Amino acid sequence: MSFKIGLLGLGTVGTGTAEILLSPEGRHPLVQELEIYRVGVRDISKPRDVQISKEILTTDLEAIVTDPEVDIVVELLGGLEPARSLILKAIAHRKHVVTANKAVISRFAEEIYDAANEKGVYVMLEAAVGGGIPIIQPLKQTLGVNRIQAITGIVNGTTNYILTRMQNEGADFADVLADAQKLGYAEADPTADVEGFDAADKIAILASLAFGGRIKLEEVYHEGITKVGAADISYAEKLGFVIKLLAVAKQMPVASNQPEQLQVRVHPTLVPKQHPLASVSGVYNAIFVEGDPIGQVMFYGRGAGAGPTASAVVSDILNIASILKTVSQPPTPNLHPLLACTHQHYCQIAPMDELVTRFYARFLTNDSPGVIGHLGTSFGNQGVSLESVVQTGFQGELAEIVVVTHDVREGNFRQALAEIRSLDAVDSIASLLRVL
Amino acid sequence: MSFKIGLLGLGTVGTGTAEILLSPEGRHPLVQELEIYRVGVRDISKPRDVQISKEILTTDLEAIVTDPEVDIVVELLGGLEPARSLILKAIAHRKHVVTANKAVISRFAEEIYDAANEKGVYVMLEAAVGGGIPIIQPLKQTLGVNRIQAITGIVNGTTNYILTRMQNEGADFADVLADAQKLGYAEADPTADVEGFDAADKIAILASLAFGGRIKLEEVYHEGITKVGAADISYAEKLGFVIKLLAVAKQMPVASNQPEQLQVRVHPTLVPKQHPLASVSGVYNAIFVEGDPIGQVMFYGRGAGAGPTASAVVSDILNIASILKTVSQPPTPNLHPLLACTHQHYCQIAPMDELVTRFYARFLTNDSPGVIGHLGTSFGNQGVSLESVVQTGFQGELAEIVVVTHDVREGNFRQALAEIRSLDAVDSIASLLRVL
Repeated sequence: MSFKIGLLGLGTVGTGTAEILLSPEGRHPLVQELEIYRVGVRDISKPRDVQISKEILTTDLEAIVTDPEVDIVVELLGGLEPARSLILKAIAHRKHVVTANKAVISRFAEEIYDAANEKGVYVMLEAAVGGGIPIIQPLKQTLGVNRIQAITGIVNGTTNYILTRMQNEGADFADVLADAQKLGYAEADPTADVEGFDAADKIAILASLAFGGRIKLEEVYHEGITKVGAADISYAEKLGFVIKLLAVAKQMPVASNQPEQLQVRVHPTLVPKQHPLASVSGVYNAIFVEGDPIGQVMFYGRGAGAGPTASAVVSDILNIASILKTVSQPPTPNLHPLLACTHQHYCQIAPMDELVTRFYARFLTNDSPGVIGHLGTSFGNQGVSLESVVQTGFQGELAEIVVVTHDVREGNFRQALAEIRSLDAVDSIASLLRVL
Repeated sequence: MSFKIGLLGLGTVGTGTAEILLSPEGRHPLVQELEIYRVGVRDISKPRDVQISKEILTTDLEAIVTDPEVDIVVELLGGLEPARSLILKAIAHRKHVVTANKAVISRFAEEIYDAANEKGVYVMLEAAVGGGIPIIQPLKQTLGVNRIQAITGIVNGTTNYILTRMQNEGADFADVLADAQKLGYAEADPTADVEGFDAADKIAILASLAFGGRIKLEEVYHEGITKVGAADISYAEKLGFVIKLLAVAKQMPVASNQPEQLQVRVHPTLVPKQHPLASVSGVYNAIFVEGDPIGQVMFYGRGAGAGPTASAVVSDILNIASILKTVSQPPTPNLHPLLACTHQHYCQIAPMDELVTRFYARFLTNDSPGVIGHLGTSFGNQGVSLESVVQTGFQGELAEIVVVTHDVREGNFRQALAEIRSLDAVDSIASLLRVL
């Protein structure tokens, strides 16, 4: 028995995927039964790092997703179109789909999974989040018996690389970014990474799986790392924290008779040094899951790169092939309930004002007596209690004051900030970060 | 559709398992279809922490594993017998089996899996290693497309708790052990944990899954933590290491025309502080996997306890139920190739002498000139090169010398030690540890 793969795209991850499929020795025996049947590329004559017969290359991607011989379509094009349309057309032709495309899945999950469920095919996406780290399959297959309380992830390698270097070198964001671009760790246009769009796509997908409902991507709050200063990293360090771009999905405390609500958000965060996520450095990713009764578990590994991502892609292919072997007569009479995505409702997302968290804020103020007192009064008026207040030094004529609050409702904290901004003694709020 | 569970044992993990099954709200919808049909206990009248109707309790465990109504037998008795016999009888009656029993699986995998494959049933064991941490399923279902190079785990919570406290408090093994026993973190008879037997069972299971062959438990080298001194922890710290009980399974470098060999071993190890395993503290477990092309991934969580272990048990039940739903007419026509255990051959295990590793050794010597020179000569005679040599102080009249070697073949290192032991100036070798 062999399973015919139609591969869309032969870039970095596509090449990595082909390399695994073409060298099955030492891997799970079933890899031998996976055949690269067609590969869709833009330019057939381009030299390739992988030995694929020219005869199976084609520029006609539609022909692949409609080919009756193809069992599984592997979409590694990236971007929204033509990826979305090809995925939908593959499903319409009863192909199973494996994709690494977080952008398409986070935006078009409803359309894609409705179509897949109707046709009785699988759409698998292990590679869409966390590169090679097994996180999608564990969420679907192992952690689902838990009531998940929270998922907290470092899911963007580029920003974690930048923050790690800023921390190690005391360097500024712009300098490290420029160097990261030179070294190939950041894109020429780094917006998707450094503004948190990429992490937002990923946490939308993780939240959907963990909490068993659909997520509207536009409801995911996201804030990037462009405003994180070297000063903040240094103060955080002194206070016992490291700054990480976290993607968080968390169950809100449920009030009686109220519907369940989730927080789903991406923002730079002060992480206590003893937290397992604090030591995740460089391009590594980690996803920290809390549930009842499992407690805390964490998954760690390389979040990108040809090899790790291809490992995830081929594991999805292997899982589909395994199901097809098990049920003997495809198409499957029933979809496997843990691998299919059958939830229909949308999760309700709480507004950020309702978030209860600790905050870190850095103020620039006049060096006049009583400034800390004024700050304290404004915070007190909104019920914001302070965990620590540090007058840290001077920036020119201005005094620098750093505060860390206790847990506070974000709405109340923002009101206190509005009051503080109006104080004569306060020049500006230089930065504002949440604390894990 | 509902799946009838026969639960053997209602101790800590059995109770945790029943609690999940009896409160399906907020979990995967399929949990609702799992029915606790019979529970085998020693004493029906014993008060229980979980509400289970007395009518489904029985002391007749054989009746459960032979009951035609039971779909899945969940063995949570622990120990070798009657667990092994009941598992085999359940299989003979075409029941799928879920077990947390590392001792039975590591010793009787051949017998159990041969029987299971013959009868077309699954034997699932996520809970046998790493408590709630998803590691068995990722190894079977996600990581199998890789060529696994090494698995390095902290898989015993009791010893990690003891070592962490020794490190934090500068305390001696015996004192911490006594306190851990009082607190319930160590058994009254701690042998299985502190001598490395438990970790050996677990690495045998992990190695078998990762390398796709059977492992003879008696070929697994294991050494416990009873000889690790407070002095060693303190010297390790100064040299940039923490001491952990590691369970390691690793592919040996392959010489041409030689069969593949594995190292499978458990021993206290100096772990560099920057290694992800170094910060795994207390009762937490972590399993670090290296493969091609995935690179490094790590799985972290609570390695024991009712809740985490029950999470793993129920996830196995759920996976079996999912397959049964997918194939519609059980018994399954074909076993799912990633969930079944079909390998037949035994992995060849390399003798410890062939291991190439760094060593840490602490010598007590006379305080005479030239002792370090003598040590150096003996090491040099066997081709052992030293990374660092520290004369650390005095123990009474004796000088204490700590060395860390570069990579060396263990056999050569042991020959050098034999020579060193015969030196007049050397009183004793106070400790000897491997370095990661």
